[in-house]
This record gives sequence, structure tokens and C-alpha cells, in this order.
Amino acid sequence: MTKTLLALSAAALCFTMPVLAAAQVPGGVYKYPAQAEADAALEFDRAAWDFVEGVTTEVGPRQAGTEAEARGRDWAVKWLKARGFQNVADEPFMMDTWVPGDTHKAEITSPFPQPFVIQPLGGSASTGPDGIEAEVVMFKTVADLNAAPAGSLEGKIAYISHSMTPTQDGSQYGFAGPARWVGAGIAKNKGAIATVIKSVGTDYHRNPHTGGTTFRNADGSTDVGRVVPTPAGALSLPDAANLERMFERAGDRPITMKLVLTPERLGMTQSGNVVGEIVGTNPDLPPVLLACHLDSWWNSPGAFDDGAGCGIAAAAALNVQKHGQPLRTIRVLFAGAEEVGLFGSTAYSEAHIDEPIGVAYESDFGADRIWRFESNFRDTNPDLHAELAASVARFGVADSTIVARGGADINIARDQKTAIIDLQQDGTRYFDLHHTPDDTLDKIDPVQLRQNVAVWTQITGILANYEGSIQGD
Amino acid sequence: MTKTLLALSAAALCFTMPVLAAAQVPGGVYKYPAQAEADAALEFDRAAWDFVEGVTTEVGPRQAGTEAEARGRDWAVKWLKARGFQNVADEPFMMDTWVPGDTHKAEITSPFPQPFVIQPLGGSASTGPDGIEAEVVMFKTVADLNAAPAGSLEGKIAYISHSMTPTQDGSQYGFAGPARWVGAGIAKNKGAIATVIKSVGTDYHRNPHTGGTTFRNADGSTDVGRVVPTPAGALSLPDAANLERMFERAGDRPITMKLVLTPERLGMTQSGNVVGEIVGTNPDLPPVLLACHLDSWWNSPGAFDDGAGCGIAAAAALNVQKHGQPLRTIRVLFAGAEEVGLFGSTAYSEAHIDEPIGVAYESDFGADRIWRFESNFRDTNPDLHAELAASVARFGVADSTIVARGGADINIARDQKTAIIDLQQDGTRYFDLHHTPDDTLDKIDPVQLRQNVAVWTQITGILANYEGSIQGD
Repeated sequence: MTKTLLALSAAALCFTMPVLAAAQVPGGVYKYPAQAEADAALEFDRAAWDFVEGVTTEVGPRQAGTEAEARGRDWAVKWLKARGFQNVADEPFMMDTWVPGDTHKAEITSPFPQPFVIQPLGGSASTGPDGIEAEVVMFKTVADLNAAPAGSLEGKIAYISHSMTPTQDGSQYGFAGPARWVGAGIAKNKGAIATVIKSVGTDYHRNPHTGGTTFRNADGSTDVGRVVPTPAGALSLPDAANLERMFERAGDRPITMKLVLTPERLGMTQSGNVVGEIVGTNPDLPPVLLACHLDSWWNSPGAFDDGAGCGIAAAAALNVQKHGQPLRTIRVLFAGAEEVGLFGSTAYSEAHIDEPIGVAYESDFGADRIWRFESNFRDTNPDLHAELAASVARFGVADSTIVARGGADINIARDQKTAIIDLQQDGTRYFDLHHTPDDTLDKIDPVQLRQNVAVWTQITGILANYEGSIQGD
Repeated sequence: MTKTLLALSAAALCFTMPVLAAAQVPGGVYKYPAQAEADAALEFDRAAWDFVEGVTTEVGPRQAGTEAEARGRDWAVKWLKARGFQNVADEPFMMDTWVPGDTHKAEITSPFPQPFVIQPLGGSASTGPDGIEAEVVMFKTVADLNAAPAGSLEGKIAYISHSMTPTQDGSQYGFAGPARWVGAGIAKNKGAIATVIKSVGTDYHRNPHTGGTTFRNADGSTDVGRVVPTPAGALSLPDAANLERMFERAGDRPITMKLVLTPERLGMTQSGNVVGEIVGTNPDLPPVLLACHLDSWWNSPGAFDDGAGCGIAAAAALNVQKHGQPLRTIRVLFAGAEEVGLFGSTAYSEAHIDEPIGVAYESDFGADRIWRFESNFRDTNPDLHAELAASVARFGVADSTIVARGGADINIARDQKTAIIDLQQDGTRYFDLHHTPDDTLDKIDPVQLRQNVAVWTQITGILANYEGSIQGD
């Protein structure tokens, strides 16, 4: 125990000491472009907080394709212009829009009548205002659901559980996520008239985790015009636990649930990507692209997901500008309609595929500390990779051999097969908040937010002033 | 830092060591009645958990005066009978019943349109299904509201804030509580058409804290038939923080809110008190009364408040019985309709005022560790007080000179001016959960719950076998 505690104390010291050391490198010369600005950001940055406080307070929830998302874009355009970004634009695109509707109710009607807290999954059909009532069949895992015989869920409501653990790297999202991503579609193809899932999350609050679910045709296609979805919702984790206890206590008695979910499809509506630039001294060099997404689910003002990410990206660009006009243009991309299917990322890549970018990275995993640096050019440009990794070591960021794949909104970088960086954030509490009403400003730790800005400032300072090919080819 | 950590380590050791020691006192003889049963409860009690798991799973929310509360009483009667309690009864009384209705919505309509999470306060009027919309006037404290000129809130919605800190003894409830208890009534008398408050709580989740509010006539009376209430609701703490940020950002622009709350009054309906006994060998001696309340607010299954309390009381009675038939009768009182105005406590005292009880105590502050022992007979029966305090020292419970006043449901003890004990629970996280949808089974720590049962078993073991006057008069 003592050993552990001493290690913790040492870690606490290490977190502050390098900051002091970095302020004065040997010879009094800063080693990296924007090094002083990155150090200052760690202590004093206000821009990222101002962005996320502003967008959550003055706009609130920003469901993709709705007027609320449009208000968010207008707000972001004004914010970027007010802070001196150039070439600020709202680049529109059309999307097939789903909205959650007004009524979200679930109740057990027998043998233990009581209300549950539920929210619809993105893409859910409506039960109609009168709702539906049916027996619930429980599956502990998606594998169990897959093993159910064809037709065995005829007229039933499927309930799909999972067992998700908090992980620093968020990897259990891949383990537990299928309950939401594909569970309802599988259940429907076995005859289920609706699906409820245990929220894909790691908290214990009566706030369900929504998120998209995908229904497929018999041929595996998912186009909305042809697929007929069923109602699908997520129970809060305490309600899911209660339902599972009911199965233990009900014996042979069937458990019946009444479900009222009234989502709607609005057809094609407008969304958009907001962009802005710090223009570089050499516009011929491919820009550095800093991405995030501006939309949120309807049920929260989207602080962790992803107002913080846009604040971090914008603040880093502004900090690098303080160091002096960069060599390359720094472009921020606040993507629209990420949550509901990456429509913004797709639209941005389609619109700009012929404009090569130099490197792209995205912040979309909350606002807790960055702990790991990854790139996809460690092999092709090892010197730059090593320099970047070394430059953020003082902020507690470790190097990694993992090949960066990039966030959801930098499809263009994958499509152009260009350089990508991942600045991995600590996701330990991310899935306590992800897609829940609880994703509010108070969840953001200003100290950790500033560490993000410091790391992004340092990385961007180096890349925006790098003359050669970032990928090294 | 090290000193603190060493102290913590020592505390951790101390928590387990006395348990081992208590199993074998010098000479192999147990000093206190039910001492072995109390020690066993600390390790193995299942009854309290079974009660609270059962009532939250098989019944769920138990709003006073409704059929759900009646189902709760039926369930509790069966549970007590199944475990061998005698003279189990559901003692009915009539009450004026308020229910929350179906629609609970608040949204800012200008200048920063977005929805908020709200729940009505007990006693709130309805806005009607179409709701009301008005400018919001903010008061940081009830004192500020009191200072507002007469008529100054005409046509407005009052918003009342406070600043509550978690406290182990729960004392900040008295500090922050008036925002809920009397705020809406004061605002109404200054012309407000509705009141919203910052939830009286210490968490940061989108789950409002409901609870009763009282409107008064000009003469100070509060009888429901004459007082005309206004709509009144509690915002979740993150929403309240958001509203307060809006006031900082709105400048001269008025902030307007639309409110839809549809509570109803059902008139007189039936509630009841559930009682059961472990009959003593000397029925002439006044019984020991162990109390809790069975009702909950509509928005949660009432695990912490107060399913756990009923489980603790019942489990202690059963454990003392294992030691052998006690001298005095042990009576458990699961009171009805506590939350909405202590109707059950009042009815019980009225019905039984002529049947002297020997001593009463109640569990109604969650399920975290008991840390302090208080009685109201330290001066009149110092030997018994000292023996009781000494008997639970091994469970980490400190003696106190504070005079016990008793919980809400033991009005009868105050009315009879008899002996009262308070076994104070750690309330540090109580107001994270109090009156919110989050008051669910998963919040109960089984280890701390068993410590409660152990302490109650020990105290009850001594008192139920005490021959003299407990008060010492």
C-alpha cells in the first residue's frame, strides 16, 4: 500500500515539475514552435472553456438536421469570426433527418408494475402515441440473441444486456456497443416488435445512453428508404438492473412491458460543416486540419461530446497564431451530423477531396487528460514522429507504436490516405456521460481541459511550421 | 500527506479488527444480549438487503395515497408474515392526496432557447396542459426573495437558488432546504405565477430533487382547502447552473421560460401504516418501537429513502429474536405517507397514544454507516446510555452528548415524551440521491447496510431485554 501511495505522490509531483522546467530550456531558447504558448495554455487557456461554456449555455442540445443544430452553427460562425479566424463558413449539406419525438415511456405492466426511464435509440421507429405492450424476452448478450431461433421473437419485445467496464482507452465500447448498434436489427429479423437495451454505459444514474442503431434488409443493406425499423430504446442502467432482477424473481410468470416512443423522420433537411482558418504564410503547403463535431444528441447540451473538442481545436489554433503566423494554414472543421451517421464527415470529404491536406486530427472523446500520442507516419517520417512525441512528454503524454486511424470526422484524411494523428484522451469516465442527459458543462474539469489545449497547441505549433512532407513520402 | 495516509490505513485496520475481537470476549461470555447476533449481522445479514431489493424490484415507486403505495403495504405485510412477525397489520388512514401528473417540462424560450429537466414539487399546482410562459426573476437566496418588494413578481416566474455542501450530519439541509420548503409560497405572495428552484441537493446529474413545498394563507395557515398554490418545480442542478450562466450572459435581455407541469389533487384517498411484532415474554412492559417509512416519491423506487430503513429495522428485530424471545415486544412501524406530510406518523400516534412505548428510534437517512449514538435519556438513565454507547463502539459508533429528537415517523414518542434514540448515519452522499430518480438499489453499499443492521441489532438486543424504565424516571 505504501509503495503505491509513494508512487502516486511521485506522479503528482511529476505532473507539475516538467511545466516549470519547460519554461526555461537550456540556453533560454524554446526548442519547439509554440512551446511557450503551449506551456501558457496549460496554466491560463480560457478559449476552450469559453467555447464549450458558450455553446452549451447559449445554444444547448444540437440534434443533427434540426433548427437547433443550425443555431449552433450560427453561434460557432460568430464565435470564430469574433476571435479572428479567417475564411469562416457554414458549408451546407442535406441529410435524412430523424428526431426523437416528445414521448419516451416504458413501464412494466406485470408481474411487478412500475415505470422505467427510457430514451429512444437514433433510428428507432415510433410505437404511435398509444404505445405497444408485449412480453419481454431477455438476452444477456448479442451472441445469445444471435443464437435465438428464427421467428422465436414473434410479437415479443427483445431486451438485450451486456456487461461493460470503464476502460482508459475506451476499448470496451467495441465489446458492449453491438447491443445498441445491431441488437434491434437482429431482434427484428427474428420477429421482435420492439427492442430495449441496457444502456451502453458505465454509470449508475437514471439517464439512458442513446445513440444510433442500424436496421438491415435481408441482403444486408441499410438504406433508410427500404429498411423498416422497429421501436428501439435504451433503459437507464439502474432500470436495466431492475428488469434483470425481475427475471430472477418472476419464476414462470411472463414479464410484460408497455412502450411508448414517438420518434419521427423529417425527410431531407439541411445540416452543415462550420470551417475557419488561421491562414499560413505559404498557402501552397497542404493545411493542418483540426476536427471535432458540433452536433449533439437532443438529450444534452453536448459538453463532453463534443463541445469540448471544438473548444480544444479552436483554442490550439489561436495559441499557435500567438506564436506568429504559421507556415501552413490551420483549418478547423466543426463537423455537423456526426452522431447520426457521420454525414458531415462524408460531406466534407466529398466537397474537399481534391484539396490535399497535410495532416488531420480530431478531439471527440471528452475533455480528460491526453495520455498517449499516436501517428500513422512513425515508419515513414520517424524523425517528425519522434519530435512530436518528445514535445508533449512534459505534459504526461506517452509515445506509442499504435498506428493512428483518426476520429470520425476526418474521413477526408483516410480518403486522401494522408497523415493522421490521434491524441488519446483518458476515457475512464467517458462512458458515464456518453449520449446521456448528463453530458453537461459541470462534467468538464478545467485543469484537464487546459492540458488538452496545451498538447494540441504544441503538436499544432510544430506541424503548422513544418516545411517538408508530414507523411515523409 | 503521509500522516493522513497512515491515519487512513489505521482506520481501515480498525474497522475490521474489532469485529474479530468481539467474537470472543474474555471468558468466552458475551457481554450484551444479542452481541453474537450483531456481530454475525455485520458479516452475514441478508434480511435487510432482501427487503430493500424486494420492495424496489417487485413494487417500485410508492407515492403516498396511491395504489402503488397500497401495493407496497400488501408486499410488506406478506414479507413480514413470511419471516414470522406476529400481529402484522395494515392500519389504514385517510389523506388528502397529491399526484405529480404526466407532463413535467421546462424550456428557456429566449434568449437562449433550450429544454431543461424539471420535476414538480409536492403540492405544486398545475399549469394546465398548455403551460405558462413568463420572464424569470432570479434570487440567489431565500433572503433575497424575502427582500423583494410586494407585488414585484407580478406575472413573473421566480427562480430561487442556494449553495448546498455535502455534510456528514446532513445539517446543510436546514441551510438550503427553505428554497424548496417555503420559496414558492413567498414568491406567490409577491405576485409570482410560478416558482422554479435549484434542486436542494449536492449532486451534478440531470435528475431533479423533488419534495414538498408549503403555501400559506395571509394569516399563516397552510390548510389545503383554502390555500391556492402556484406551479412549482425543481430544476436539476446542471440545469440550474445553466440558467444562472444565462443570467450572466444575457445582459439586459429578459430570460423567458415556458413551464408545463400537470400535477393533480385526488381528494381524500387511503394510506396506511404497516406494523408487525416480535412478541416479548412480558407484554406488560412497554414495547421497543423500530420505525421507518414505506412510501417514496413517484420518481424513484425509494431504496435509500426509505426502503433500506425498513429493511434495517426488520432485520434487527429478526436478529434479536434469534438470540431468544425478548423480554419486551419489538414492534416495527413501516409508516405510510411520510414524504408528503408525515400523515402516517400523525395517524399512528393518534391511534396508539394510549399504549405507552418504552423507546423509539427510526432509520430514514439512507444506508451508509452509523457513526454516532444519541439518546434523550443520557441524564435520566446514564448507566443505560453508557451501556448502549459502549455496546456499539466496536462498530465505529461514537457516543454523543447531543439530545436525540427522533425521526419523522416517531411522533408518538415525542407525543408520549418517552425515550428516543438517534443512530446517526453518514449523510455525506445522502443529498446526492434524496428525492431523485437516482434513489435506486445500486446506490446501497451492502457492507455499510450490514453495519447498520449490526448496530440496530445490538441496540435493540439490549433495550428489548431491559427490565427497568428505559427513560430512567
